[in-house]
Amino acid sequence: MKNMEDKGKKGVKKGKDVDRYKEILDLASRRSFFYQSAEIYGAYAGFWDYGHYGNLMLNNIINFWRRWFVKYEDMIEINGSIALPKKVFASSGHLNNFNDPIVKCTKCNSIFRVDKLIEEKTKKHISESMSVDEFNKLIKENNIVCPKCGGKLSNVTLFNMMLDVKIGVGKNQIAYLRPETCQSIFVDFNRIYKTNRIKLPVGIAQVGKAFRNEISPRQSILRQIEFNQMEIEIFFDPDKINEFDKYNGVKNYKLRLFIDNKINEVNVEDALKKKIVSGKLIAYYLARVQQFYENLGIKKEDIRLRSVSKDDRPFYSRETWDLEINTCLGWIEVVANNYRQDYDLKVHSKGSNKDLSVTNGKKFIPHVWEISVGLDRTLFILLERNYKKTGDRNVLSLKPFIAPINIGILPLMKKDELVDLSRKIYDKLKLEYNCFYDDSGSIGRRYARLDEIGCPFCITIDYDSLKNNDCTLRFRDTTEQIRIKISDIPDVVRELVKGMNFNDLKKFKTKNI
Amino acid sequence: MKNMEDKGKKGVKKGKDVDRYKEILDLASRRSFFYQSAEIYGAYAGFWDYGHYGNLMLNNIINFWRRWFVKYEDMIEINGSIALPKKVFASSGHLNNFNDPIVKCTKCNSIFRVDKLIEEKTKKHISESMSVDEFNKLIKENNIVCPKCGGKLSNVTLFNMMLDVKIGVGKNQIAYLRPETCQSIFVDFNRIYKTNRIKLPVGIAQVGKAFRNEISPRQSILRQIEFNQMEIEIFFDPDKINEFDKYNGVKNYKLRLFIDNKINEVNVEDALKKKIVSGKLIAYYLARVQQFYENLGIKKEDIRLRSVSKDDRPFYSRETWDLEINTCLGWIEVVANNYRQDYDLKVHSKGSNKDLSVTNGKKFIPHVWEISVGLDRTLFILLERNYKKTGDRNVLSLKPFIAPINIGILPLMKKDELVDLSRKIYDKLKLEYNCFYDDSGSIGRRYARLDEIGCPFCITIDYDSLKNNDCTLRFRDTTEQIRIKISDIPDVVRELVKGMNFNDLKKFKTKNI
Repeated sequence: MKNMEDKGKKGVKKGKDVDRYKEILDLASRRSFFYQSAEIYGAYAGFWDYGHYGNLMLNNIINFWRRWFVKYEDMIEINGSIALPKKVFASSGHLNNFNDPIVKCTKCNSIFRVDKLIEEKTKKHISESMSVDEFNKLIKENNIVCPKCGGKLSNVTLFNMMLDVKIGVGKNQIAYLRPETCQSIFVDFNRIYKTNRIKLPVGIAQVGKAFRNEISPRQSILRQIEFNQMEIEIFFDPDKINEFDKYNGVKNYKLRLFIDNKINEVNVEDALKKKIVSGKLIAYYLARVQQFYENLGIKKEDIRLRSVSKDDRPFYSRETWDLEINTCLGWIEVVANNYRQDYDLKVHSKGSNKDLSVTNGKKFIPHVWEISVGLDRTLFILLERNYKKTGDRNVLSLKPFIAPINIGILPLMKKDELVDLSRKIYDKLKLEYNCFYDDSGSIGRRYARLDEIGCPFCITIDYDSLKNNDCTLRFRDTTEQIRIKISDIPDVVRELVKGMNFNDLKKFKTKNI
Repeated sequence: MKNMEDKGKKGVKKGKDVDRYKEILDLASRRSFFYQSAEIYGAYAGFWDYGHYGNLMLNNIINFWRRWFVKYEDMIEINGSIALPKKVFASSGHLNNFNDPIVKCTKCNSIFRVDKLIEEKTKKHISESMSVDEFNKLIKENNIVCPKCGGKLSNVTLFNMMLDVKIGVGKNQIAYLRPETCQSIFVDFNRIYKTNRIKLPVGIAQVGKAFRNEISPRQSILRQIEFNQMEIEIFFDPDKINEFDKYNGVKNYKLRLFIDNKINEVNVEDALKKKIVSGKLIAYYLARVQQFYENLGIKKEDIRLRSVSKDDRPFYSRETWDLEINTCLGWIEVVANNYRQDYDLKVHSKGSNKDLSVTNGKKFIPHVWEISVGLDRTLFILLERNYKKTGDRNVLSLKPFIAPINIGILPLMKKDELVDLSRKIYDKLKLEYNCFYDDSGSIGRRYARLDEIGCPFCITIDYDSLKNNDCTLRFRDTTEQIRIKISDIPDVVRELVKGMNFNDLKKFKTKNI
């Protein structure tokens, strides 16, 4: 009985700042980035909905992930069913092994995760992959009782996290809601390989929903029952793990490896030479995933790749690096990077009685390097790392391509001629960018509302605009304002959303002003 | 007991061409547009996966829908949970009313949908919203027996199509997988209205998965248990249904209304004057949804808006128009347009004991016009309407912005210098467009493979390209080829993907050649 996996769902490390966390939840709720689903009915724990801004951000993150990984790396992306036949998870091992160890209080019936309970009492790290006997022993040795009522605890049992759905008129076909998006990638691999004329190595990606019956869903979108993943499985010939030219492009890049409780900045090349990382392909993708978060706007010092020990990593993984981000709740795992070897194709080959090997000079079952990104967690850390309350300003400093709204368009006052021109500009931009038109309330209040949802730029139309065909362009982070020609707006907005620095813009456009 | 709804899922009308249908399934499978999920295990009926090309097409359709409706119409888009608490569907009526009437053979135990069975026997239209007694009577009157074994049929019973999932450690929280994406739009409405500072009318949209335990899933992605919807609920003040300025932009547009078994081309304005359509807002959105399919490349004559009679439409709908597309399987419903009135907000207000009315001069519960698009069906009809087999050519004539691959990049032969230049062009384009690089096999075979997946344009690099810095640009539909400068490729591709006609391109670029 070993840890099946905990991809994108692992707990949160110490160092919590509860007030700060509440500030983020308050922002999320006030502006409907996310909120409990069916809240008018008294929501079930573990289910959250994304409102307009949250959904726009999710799509921006997915699009960037798609550019960064799928398109840049010439990957395949599929979109498979959420509900899959029982046999799939019998083969994958989830039906037997995807368990949390739990105890029940014999007095108040509260249920707890054993490993967490023992950790809290002993202040020592407890692997969730211990045996039931080991857990029972630790509970006895440490005299652990119910933290709620002091009652005696039951023996440890295993709780399977899979959610089943009964299909068909007789409800006799048992399906399970996938606990990770990747299983259909493995199950479909052979067909994808053949019909897409693939050469290895190849990444196959999928973004979508997954479900886990968490014992104690908590921390809002960080540990949900229904959640979103972006997973990539890279299939390769293990004999050619070091025949990987792209590696040269990153070999001087510094990985932030967290080993033995210490962050080490290590050159990709050195990590490989010192055998900290077991192959060029793996080293390359570790660099790419760290860069992904840097490009999303997370500071390097808030990122680390944690080496996960044999006891704590999934049993099929030969090498695991959890990408963690430092937040008010401590270091949060947002990506699990696993060397799954040939585990998945082997078990599905056996389970389905189909040959899933490939022939590429020789006949073999490809190995898999996995990059499993928690999408909800990525959104959360982007809010948390970028939201600043200073004085009376609430500013969400998201990068322009991640911000839910790219550009606000505001008439200085709600006067017909200003409204008309503003609307005209809005209509011209709104299909290409996420725009927000607002004419109600003082201009200061409108800027403040847009600052808070991360809108990086505002265009303001005033009476001078009517005379001079120009407008004010305001930058969220500094509240700096410059005048630009209205005819330059499309060019300016394109460059800014792409990532041009506001100061460079001033140079770029000075000639026109 | 009335028809709950059948949005995006209604049966297929007569006029089947089975060979043609098989041709489409064969294309879908051969190139992995879609295929049965978990097929290596012997799939469950009603579950399909999308491969690389299918997924790219899905995303293209979603993006166009987003531009056409959500962005153009200044709508809100949310992303809610698939699993929702039991109470939501108790209130919505699904737990009681979302039933199919069925009979079982007392001899061979086969199960049939009663209305379909009676229709087959009597060749008359049978409303699925008849009472159990009426169905029993019709079975008796028409002496209907089991079509498989001739056995006696059981009494009619109602089969609820909702799929339940038990949540929590004690599995004591009952959730249901939503049978339509729209319920969270209604449940979340009040919060969205308040936190987004909305003025009515406003559309709230959602795209995502929904689940229905279909008795007989069939016709591949046309009737699945797990399927994809794009739904829009437009909330408005019923007293102001005719205060809708945008209407003027479409009033001369011709709707293709199918009434009394006849298609009538009717001006939007006339449809309103003759009270065929009950308000400007509704007339406008009927025009917009018909235009949506025309813009996707469906010929006007293959589109009709079917007026759905009171017996056949959802019981809460005052007016229903099904948008249907003519295919090899007959007319297929791809969009349900329903005037849901205040049904949903009223029942959720009652069920949750929360006031879901709005205050806008007066206090009232908004009415809802719904545009419920079947995403899988839209993909299917785009394949079916656009796939042509002529002589030895298989061509999928998708519009460039819908085609899974926008542009193919091919070296004429697999020679280093041609490969290098082709790769360079590919790398330059691949982040902005969906590109495909291919250097294996004869150039004719490579063109053929790209024609079949709908790739509209191919760039071919030959030895002249090295001397003259130009390349061949080939157009899928005519196989026509012109030479363009390599430096013009970005401009040319941008214009072509946007929709520029290949012949106009020749004029546009002649000066450079």
